Amino acid sequence: MYPKSFESLVESFKKLPGIGAKTAERLAFSVLDFDLEDANSFSDSIVSVKKKIKNCPICGVLTEDDACYICKDNSRDKTSLIVVEDSRGVFLIEKMGKFNGIYHVLGGLISPIDGIGPEDLAIQTLIERVKENNIKEVVLAIKSGIEADTTALYIKKVLEKYNVKVTRIASGIPIGADMEYVDFLTLDTALKNRKEVLNFD
Amino acid sequence: MYPKSFESLVESFKKLPGIGAKTAERLAFSVLDFDLEDANSFSDSIVSVKKKIKNCPICGVLTEDDACYICKDNSRDKTSLIVVEDSRGVFLIEKMGKFNGIYHVLGGLISPIDGIGPEDLAIQTLIERVKENNIKEVVLAIKSGIEADTTALYIKKVLEKYNVKVTRIASGIPIGADMEYVDFLTLDTALKNRKEVLNFD
Repeated sequence: MYPKSFESLVESFKKLPGIGAKTAERLAFSVLDFDLEDANSFSDSIVSVKKKIKNCPICGVLTEDDACYICKDNSRDKTSLIVVEDSRGVFLIEKMGKFNGIYHVLGGLISPIDGIGPEDLAIQTLIERVKENNIKEVVLAIKSGIEADTTALYIKKVLEKYNVKVTRIASGIPIGADMEYVDFLTLDTALKNRKEVLNFD
Repeated sequence: MYPKSFESLVESFKKLPGIGAKTAERLAFSVLDFDLEDANSFSDSIVSVKKKIKNCPICGVLTEDDACYICKDNSRDKTSLIVVEDSRGVFLIEKMGKFNGIYHVLGGLISPIDGIGPEDLAIQTLIERVKENNIKEVVLAIKSGIEADTTALYIKKVLEKYNVKVTRIASGIPIGADMEYVDFLTLDTALKNRKEVLNFD
């Protein structure tokens, strides 16, 4: 019913997460209103990311270069490493702008139900990096849940024989969130991880 | 922070309506997971719609051909014409599959506030079509609101001297809602309950 090229664009939009039929049609109509430059740039960038973006061979984060800008930056503290599930985590922490160490992208979490074992993740390369470099602390910046907990315990175990501290970011109540909207699991965790109130530290 | 091509893709997604920064990033990450074929098809269809899609010279609906498939179809009732604000309306009514007449796309609604007068819309061509063809009924399938009402009255007036009935789809369409979000039952009822436009009643 729609012209063929339009229908094809609608189908492409529908492949994106959270985009249903109606929204896909709406987005396709809006592309028609793009000026030619914007449309070309949109089109080119889709092909570009597929062609140019690869994983940094050292840490695994998305990059267009032979190594990512973080791994190439000698001013960064190479003794402090944050482990994340995927590249999103790296960019999120980088945006915050408070961490000057390096990263390691796992590429997922251990999940026996989904058939994902440690060998499917970048855990061996993490061990090598810890072994070969002078890494003092590995911070696990992964979400909460059974899979994340399993992954955390596994990494803790395989790094045990090396002289490295393995920590995990705190779970608790988000800053500014109202108490009444916090789920019981989070609240329970926050209670268990309570800290003594110190004077202006 | 993001690789250049990735950042460019995020920027393109942000130009789409209703897509904020977080969603744009999420969508860009999902494009990375597209297989190459899907990515190429997505990219191509963006350029294709801009290149190939034009307005039917007769009714104004989006088409890739010299005339749209509706205007070219001789089995359709050329005496019954539905006027819509834009192409979306045509595709919506076509999807419902209960109308066998023809269409006319206005390209907007009369809106003095936005400086859109009758001469900015395809109203003159509507008059010509009514004059030159044996059109018996013009159904205004436009949403509710001041601009739509003004447009309806204006069209009623300019078609007065021709032997044509001017009707408007009935209420049932929520005030202010966009045509594309109306369900088919409501749309069907509204079509059946169309009423003749009266002069400022």
